[in-house]
Amino acid sequence: GITEAALMARIDEHAAIGAIAQGGVCRIALTDADRAGRDRLVQWMQDLGLTVRVDRIGNIFGIRPGRQPDARPVITGSHIDTVATGGRYDGNYGVMAGLEVVRWLNDNQRETLRPFVVAAFTNEEGVRFMPDMMGSLVHAGGLPLDAALDTVGTDGARLGDELARIGYAGDMACGALVPHAFVELHIEQGPVLEAEGITIGAVADLQGISWQEIVVTGQSNHAGTTPMRLRHDAGYCAAAIAVFVRELARRYGGSQVATVGAIDLHPNLINVIAARATLTVDLRNTDEATLQAAEVELADHLRQLEATEGVTIAARTLARFEPVRFDERLVRVIEASAHARGLSHRRMTSGAGHDAQMMARIGPAAMIFVPSVRGISHNPKEHTASADLVQGANVLLDVVLGLVDE
Amino acid sequence: GITEAALMARIDEHAAIGAIAQGGVCRIALTDADRAGRDRLVQWMQDLGLTVRVDRIGNIFGIRPGRQPDARPVITGSHIDTVATGGRYDGNYGVMAGLEVVRWLNDNQRETLRPFVVAAFTNEEGVRFMPDMMGSLVHAGGLPLDAALDTVGTDGARLGDELARIGYAGDMACGALVPHAFVELHIEQGPVLEAEGITIGAVADLQGISWQEIVVTGQSNHAGTTPMRLRHDAGYCAAAIAVFVRELARRYGGSQVATVGAIDLHPNLINVIAARATLTVDLRNTDEATLQAAEVELADHLRQLEATEGVTIAARTLARFEPVRFDERLVRVIEASAHARGLSHRRMTSGAGHDAQMMARIGPAAMIFVPSVRGISHNPKEHTASADLVQGANVLLDVVLGLVDE
Ligand SMILES: NC(=O)NCCC(=O)O
Ligand SMILES: NC(=O)NCCC(=O)O
Repeated sequence: GITEAALMARIDEHAAIGAIAQGGVCRIALTDADRAGRDRLVQWMQDLGLTVRVDRIGNIFGIRPGRQPDARPVITGSHIDTVATGGRYDGNYGVMAGLEVVRWLNDNQRETLRPFVVAAFTNEEGVRFMPDMMGSLVHAGGLPLDAALDTVGTDGARLGDELARIGYAGDMACGALVPHAFVELHIEQGPVLEAEGITIGAVADLQGISWQEIVVTGQSNHAGTTPMRLRHDAGYCAAAIAVFVRELARRYGGSQVATVGAIDLHPNLINVIAARATLTVDLRNTDEATLQAAEVELADHLRQLEATEGVTIAARTLARFEPVRFDERLVRVIEASAHARGLSHRRMTSGAGHDAQMMARIGPAAMIFVPSVRGISHNPKEHTASADLVQGANVLLDVVLGLVDE
Repeated sequence: GITEAALMARIDEHAAIGAIAQGGVCRIALTDADRAGRDRLVQWMQDLGLTVRVDRIGNIFGIRPGRQPDARPVITGSHIDTVATGGRYDGNYGVMAGLEVVRWLNDNQRETLRPFVVAAFTNEEGVRFMPDMMGSLVHAGGLPLDAALDTVGTDGARLGDELARIGYAGDMACGALVPHAFVELHIEQGPVLEAEGITIGAVADLQGISWQEIVVTGQSNHAGTTPMRLRHDAGYCAAAIAVFVRELARRYGGSQVATVGAIDLHPNLINVIAARATLTVDLRNTDEATLQAAEVELADHLRQLEATEGVTIAARTLARFEPVRFDERLVRVIEASAHARGLSHRRMTSGAGHDAQMMARIGPAAMIFVPSVRGISHNPKEHTASADLVQGANVLLDVVLGLVDE
């Protein structure tokens, strides 16, 4: 099987690119750090004898040919971009493990019927360019290439320009590789597996995601002289929205989560009532109808704030994905592989969005999760025991071995 | 008396320095724009034959000698720094009107018993360097000069260095000029006079001001995978604090106001629970005991949030001034002057902090207010009818004429 030493050496070497304090990584999509991470990945793919193809949205594919070159490939992979304060495993783990599967196939001189592909999708995190999971979404035909290339980032940059700048505007048509099966190995990024002492998650479904940007326009005025009843305080409205969505999530219970992760006030001064607030809302639920109900409640709350606070509020959808059910057969294959290795396992839901959810649009897809210590992710302290990482990689290996000769 | 044309020409010319859109001014303390505004003021003072003195904290005094050179001077003035999105009258009006009083005295070859001084105090707004009213506070002995010079701005600059850089680290000892009377003419910056159709406010007292910076430290984590009950969300805590102080102000009623004008989240990303929030709280009340009660309630709320949200919260006082009562005799002089000119007038409270509140520590002080259209201030749209501005300037002239020969 895959050895812990080989897997960890690769993960550690890659995590040094864009390294930040506390073992974290900052490799935001299409920055210089992302380029450096891509360059290293491509070098490794070439060292392993893979044929490297880059498509027009910058997705990188390392292809190991099969005996039937035209058969649909088995694809694994994930992403190598990170959030600004990211950990070293989110995304990268799945790509590095994919390379280790290739090394195992090479070392064991294993020919396969189908091609085997390791993919790294562009801009999964979506913190600079929205929506997230963009590379896999374009691959799956869910977003036109031109729209994706024209996306303007939070820093004002155009995605297509940045892609060309870092040298990853490839020439392969998007969506050219249609999977026989897509299996993504990823850290859980949540607390479930660790809390239950389970090593392998067979991910059966994935929450719906609703991302909105809300802009509140009020009136700046003096914090000392303006009576409370005469205020049009955009900062207060932003705060009220954040408190409202928190209460909504508590009220709904179940899988419902709600987060206001970003707030920007203008002019953002101690003694000036804010004239403008820009904030983000991230709502997720495994049930589409419930997610829609949450969206409606939020919209109603915004209308109500407009009326009571004398402000105007504009909401814009940044990303919207329905819940996804993964392929039942693949989920069973994952469970069987974990079982055969004597590993504890359970079916579970993914709280995070993943490239697998997009790939599920064009072929059978599923995911393998390993535990995240204290459920911490999108944080430099993100951690998974290397013993768990290597178990996950070997489950991936077994799943791939079962699929490539079908 | 003072003519509208002369007063408005001076105000308009000065407002061109650091002008921003919609007629506003951005002349933050000790920036290049502040230097340019100071240079123009000094030139005007010299043109009027005033002796210009600059003290060690950069306060500028234009002195018109009296027949008794050693008598305590009558001082008027205010400040010429602005907030980032300031109007053209806040502070500047009082200084420009002071110059017009000098012009009137000169034009009418009026000798006075006491010296008459026009002052422009350093850093009244306190948006870059805290506390606000710093120049007058140092003048009044309420803050040691060295502490003031060592203040570090929101941009990391040291106040003393910036003062030297713009050429206004003067050599006069701070507090050298002790007023026989200090009278500050200012726009109301609030809605009271306009709402009641009154031209002149005789300001009898001024609210206590409590400024705090609050830093919430939670834990960044994934917005999709982290169940609500396991979050340590600094962004939510910031929002909860903003909503709490709003409700506190509504509950207290009366003069109580409460504002969260600035919020900064880290990492400030859509799908990352914020690890850290830095926010400001501005609490004001005319009654010291009530203001203290508000501070205690806020502190209790912070402790409660620490317990329920599993975060740590640190609060730091940025400025704290008790309510001030102005000199009863001066308030009556202002009322009498307004009355003699046939102007409507009322006693009132200042919601904003002013240099006069510091000068009140070392001599009799009071203020004259004129109406602010729709009560808007700290906003480029800040406006006062020029008819009202010139009335206020002439009330100041009359008050000064009554005081300089006492
Ligand atoms: N896996 C992951 O962190 N994806 C980013 C998109 C999301 O916020 O779920
Ligand atoms: N007058 C004025 O705006 N002063 C600034 C300090 C305050 O916020 O009251």
